[in-house]
Amino acid sequence: MVVIIKKGSDEGNMQQLIGWLQGQGLEVNISRGQYQTILGLIGDTHRIDADLINGLPIVERVTRITEPYKNANRKFHSQDLVVEVGGHKLGGGHFQFIAGPCSVESKEQICDIAEQVSGAGATMLRGGAFKPRTSPYAFQGLRSEGIELLLEAKARTGMPIVTEIMDASHLPLFEAVDVIQIGARNMQNFELLKEVGALKKPVLLKRGLANTLQELLMSAEYIMAGGCEDVILCERGIRTFETATRNTLDISAIPMLKSMTHLPIVIDPSHSAGIAALVGPLSLAAAAAGADGLMIEVHNDPAKALCDGPQSITPAQFAQVAAQVKAVLEVVKK
Amino acid sequence: MVVIIKKGSDEGNMQQLIGWLQGQGLEVNISRGQYQTILGLIGDTHRIDADLINGLPIVERVTRITEPYKNANRKFHSQDLVVEVGGHKLGGGHFQFIAGPCSVESKEQICDIAEQVSGAGATMLRGGAFKPRTSPYAFQGLRSEGIELLLEAKARTGMPIVTEIMDASHLPLFEAVDVIQIGARNMQNFELLKEVGALKKPVLLKRGLANTLQELLMSAEYIMAGGCEDVILCERGIRTFETATRNTLDISAIPMLKSMTHLPIVIDPSHSAGIAALVGPLSLAAAAAGADGLMIEVHNDPAKALCDGPQSITPAQFAQVAAQVKAVLEVVKK
Amino acid sequence: MVVIIKKGSDEGNMQQLIGWLQGQGLEVNISRGQYQTILGLIGDTHRIDADLINGLPIVERVTRITEPYKNANRKFHSQDLVVEVGGHKLGGGHFQFIAGPCSVESKEQICDIAEQVSGAGATMLRGGAFKPRTSPYAFQGLRSEGIELLLEAKARTGMPIVTEIMDASHLPLFEAVDVIQIGARNMQNFELLKEVGALKKPVLLKRGLANTLQELLMSAEYIMAGGCEDVILCERGIRTFETATRNTLDISAIPMLKSMTHLPIVIDPSHSAGIAALVGPLSLAAAAAGADGLMIEVHNDPAKALCDGPQSITPAQFAQVAAQVKAVLEVVKK
Amino acid sequence: MVVIIKKGSDEGNMQQLIGWLQGQGLEVNISRGQYQTILGLIGDTHRIDADLINGLPIVERVTRITEPYKNANRKFHSQDLVVEVGGHKLGGGHFQFIAGPCSVESKEQICDIAEQVSGAGATMLRGGAFKPRTSPYAFQGLRSEGIELLLEAKARTGMPIVTEIMDASHLPLFEAVDVIQIGARNMQNFELLKEVGALKKPVLLKRGLANTLQELLMSAEYIMAGGCEDVILCERGIRTFETATRNTLDISAIPMLKSMTHLPIVIDPSHSAGIAALVGPLSLAAAAAGADGLMIEVHNDPAKALCDGPQSITPAQFAQVAAQVKAVLEVVKK
Repeated sequence: MVVIIKKGSDEGNMQQLIGWLQGQGLEVNISRGQYQTILGLIGDTHRIDADLINGLPIVERVTRITEPYKNANRKFHSQDLVVEVGGHKLGGGHFQFIAGPCSVESKEQICDIAEQVSGAGATMLRGGAFKPRTSPYAFQGLRSEGIELLLEAKARTGMPIVTEIMDASHLPLFEAVDVIQIGARNMQNFELLKEVGALKKPVLLKRGLANTLQELLMSAEYIMAGGCEDVILCERGIRTFETATRNTLDISAIPMLKSMTHLPIVIDPSHSAGIAALVGPLSLAAAAAGADGLMIEVHNDPAKALCDGPQSITPAQFAQVAAQVKAVLEVVKK
Repeated sequence: MVVIIKKGSDEGNMQQLIGWLQGQGLEVNISRGQYQTILGLIGDTHRIDADLINGLPIVERVTRITEPYKNANRKFHSQDLVVEVGGHKLGGGHFQFIAGPCSVESKEQICDIAEQVSGAGATMLRGGAFKPRTSPYAFQGLRSEGIELLLEAKARTGMPIVTEIMDASHLPLFEAVDVIQIGARNMQNFELLKEVGALKKPVLLKRGLANTLQELLMSAEYIMAGGCEDVILCERGIRTFETATRNTLDISAIPMLKSMTHLPIVIDPSHSAGIAALVGPLSLAAAAAGADGLMIEVHNDPAKALCDGPQSITPAQFAQVAAQVKAVLEVVKK
Repeated sequence: MVVIIKKGSDEGNMQQLIGWLQGQGLEVNISRGQYQTILGLIGDTHRIDADLINGLPIVERVTRITEPYKNANRKFHSQDLVVEVGGHKLGGGHFQFIAGPCSVESKEQICDIAEQVSGAGATMLRGGAFKPRTSPYAFQGLRSEGIELLLEAKARTGMPIVTEIMDASHLPLFEAVDVIQIGARNMQNFELLKEVGALKKPVLLKRGLANTLQELLMSAEYIMAGGCEDVILCERGIRTFETATRNTLDISAIPMLKSMTHLPIVIDPSHSAGIAALVGPLSLAAAAAGADGLMIEVHNDPAKALCDGPQSITPAQFAQVAAQVKAVLEVVKK
Repeated sequence: MVVIIKKGSDEGNMQQLIGWLQGQGLEVNISRGQYQTILGLIGDTHRIDADLINGLPIVERVTRITEPYKNANRKFHSQDLVVEVGGHKLGGGHFQFIAGPCSVESKEQICDIAEQVSGAGATMLRGGAFKPRTSPYAFQGLRSEGIELLLEAKARTGMPIVTEIMDASHLPLFEAVDVIQIGARNMQNFELLKEVGALKKPVLLKRGLANTLQELLMSAEYIMAGGCEDVILCERGIRTFETATRNTLDISAIPMLKSMTHLPIVIDPSHSAGIAALVGPLSLAAAAAGADGLMIEVHNDPAKALCDGPQSITPAQFAQVAAQVKAVLEVVKK
């Protein structure tokens, strides 16, 4: 951490700050310049509140050199994390397909899709029971009934299930869920992160629409601080000025996150663009760039899907995409 | 609502869609062109799920003409909403100052600040008990104890209190709170919106960092759909590419929202820029542009504040800003 | 084009507008609703100035249904454009590598790199002679001398050259240049676009940092309106809130542009992220997503490069990336 | 400037870098930590190329502490710059209204508007002769004829004129122009900046749609490096995710720029939002926040304006806005 002291600051106040920093176990190196003085802080600064120091009248600016996260930090975890879900490994060279409908609609629908995507190479089933919708007048999901239907599909196909939680009070319903998903809009719902983290069950954490990679890792840190180690990160598109696609898939997030953290990264090509025709190209791009998995919306009748129809593909299209992705993975791994 | 039908679509499929739309009580006008056919839908379309129609194979695009919100819509409420809190009116020409520290730290601190800002013209007291912090290692607020201290400051000064809720399970603690604040990061925590809306108590809804004005109104609609009528909107800066300020205050949101809704609009100049020296200029700008109130962070010792020190001003500075704002308001109202 | 007429507008004014529109050769369909009236315009609207109509007092909003570009529009060009440069085809299934240093520094440097990248699979040589730099104190390129050195490298290796023009007055220097590059910061330098278009020589048009795909195509339209047909589009990262990477590569631009236009699309993975370690993963992603080529910065001594060192890779690294990209292309084409 | 050296870097390489930096006249302070070593550079670093150092293999990151601009830097100019145009002072407490149509259309139009806005308090006349338009099919301005008409209006009213240049080759036409405007799309057309700067005539420099305040000052630095001292900065809205307004006026830019530079700042409320009804509120906000002037589009018949009609106000509306702004200025200055 580097602290810039304003020109003309009182020497006594600066010495007081230096004393306080040393009291926090940090070594302080001083570089005095014409326009400002630079304090170089050496030691474990990840628990130091940069905002607090920034608020002092003698301080011009504080710049972090080391990251404010530790559990999710690559520097302390040189080995890639491998998350095992229902016998399937994800991360560290293991790639998985998570597939299923946007919303669970009926027993027939979810079981039918589960069987089809399972046959085409998916190893985990996704499906929304609780649905965050912008409009209060839009379909909100089957809720607890949806969870039951997912568990039935799991019983029938053996696929572990991934589904989103929207409120900590629903946690009892998620006991048999294999991977709990935190949606993009809840990435900084810190109370929810803490409660979900305490379960020590795999969590799939989606990046918020306007959150930086560092903030994503800080949210992972919240979950991990509670004792959970198995966090799967998910990039699903960020909000930019471009309107041709619903969001902008940040493909660079894959290699960047690989250098910042040991946690596995999954891409959601369906929500990224919001356009079914783009699911194929974006899936191939994600695999080529080094993703550890894909989370794809598949519906047996996309045009009639109760939500997010335009971005869903059919089981047949999924099978084709999965086959191409596998071919790319083989080439890239070499 | 306008539905564009793809060139070369099957006439039967189009007639089926037209029939379904008519069944929803809409009148459908057809314009046939060389490259596409346009269906103009006339009637109450705010409950129609545009995504659903957009997913049909014959549909190229759906464009909403009327807004998807009704309770928060200016078109149905020509009179400005006036929210009354503890005898103070906000909206419809009534301007209020909401002031107080970022976090409640101690009884002495909150009572002292309350008395000072009250003396300088503030009519409502703000203070964080539950604090959303990016890092799990940063101070998280005094939580329930913080609420108690706020109520004590209310008892002492008579000021109604505004404080943020982070999770619906904390609602019992908020019974005596006058205005419940929904923070920017929870603007689309739809479960929380529903539960808070059911209380029918005034709500201050902050705009999310990357949410459009329409999405802000859709979230207000969630609260209002639950029966609550008194929603105060709050613009607190959006996330852009600019890094000189922490966020970018969207000053245009004030006149735009005035044309879109009858709900009052309050500006938070403290979080907008994250810089104490900008609180004054931005407060004046907000008043000049037509805001109904200001929500300002004030701390008796900003440099020692447990959080957000750099953006807090002192009670003396607040008094100065408030006096200038009042002078601007008098000029602008004429 | 759809024109929404405000509620309560004067019927005479509306009939006058309808008459004017019909005079422009358009057919006008009218849908009258409770809150507004919708005019559906049928015909060739790409020369109609939407802003002009939008300015009329009776108009609430104008929405384009057809695109405002024609020469660059996929609808009128079902066949992919193939641009041929020095005997190398780019587009329509033909993939090319454009490689070379950020800046031309010396005869030895440019010829050395040209030979190395040529040996590794590059078919076109890039190199900056005129360099747009944010600071007036930074190296501005060798300018006309740089062009001469590029031509010498071309003479020696037979590689056609691609280099950026910054001002129309420099055009005489570009006579022997094979592909004229328009940089991101000049994407909407319309005078330059017109003058370059008049040469009818292949142009590589980079997307501006904050320009939409439609604006990119409108700039292509400027070049094509001057008679030039061979425009190669180049995505090189857009500006977003994320700061971990210098820009955000919009990978979705590849399949989106393929649906909007027949022009070929090249990706610049070097400027996209500004990080050498990301050039490999982003190149593979681009190839997998359907790009027609890559434009990669290669330097024999990146650490000493006079500009943009951090994002350059070595010739050996380029050879590795090119080999992997070719392997991915073979898999994807199947 | 702070240079972070990677953990485990070769000591010899580091000493070599330190020697080179000292050779540039800088003092280097070394802080050695467990995870990296920090070099604090003391001295005049504004000519040091941070990218160059960043490219060295042993360097993890370079952070600037002092700004890379000098001529435009507040630190070296404690007095506000006052630009005098045709006897009217702008900056340093002097406020001016620049008004006129988007495009010059005819002698009658420009002279008529000039007389009306002059009567209402405008002291400078704006009007576009060369118009940057997104579409090649839209009206491009009267060009050289437009300049002549502006000069005629100047002769008739005595108002100095402000008009945009799009290409350096047009400079001879701008000899009698009082203030040369650089448009937002040309803010980083560095060749143009250099040539315009060499004239030593007042320049109004508009901020690009996606440019930071620092980049705006770097472009001012280009103009000033050529000898021109009179640069007026203009904020005209930035591009964000919000679509309700055409751009987002960055009101915080006013107080931020005041702390970064001594150059005066003018606000363009017309292009910021693209909505005539917002010109009033945004003008008042700008004046309240400390702007040195306003640049407002005024048209005698906005609905028929050849471009940008929706954002123009009438002379009568301008007179009203100007009167309100003056009242706010009086209150704020106290």
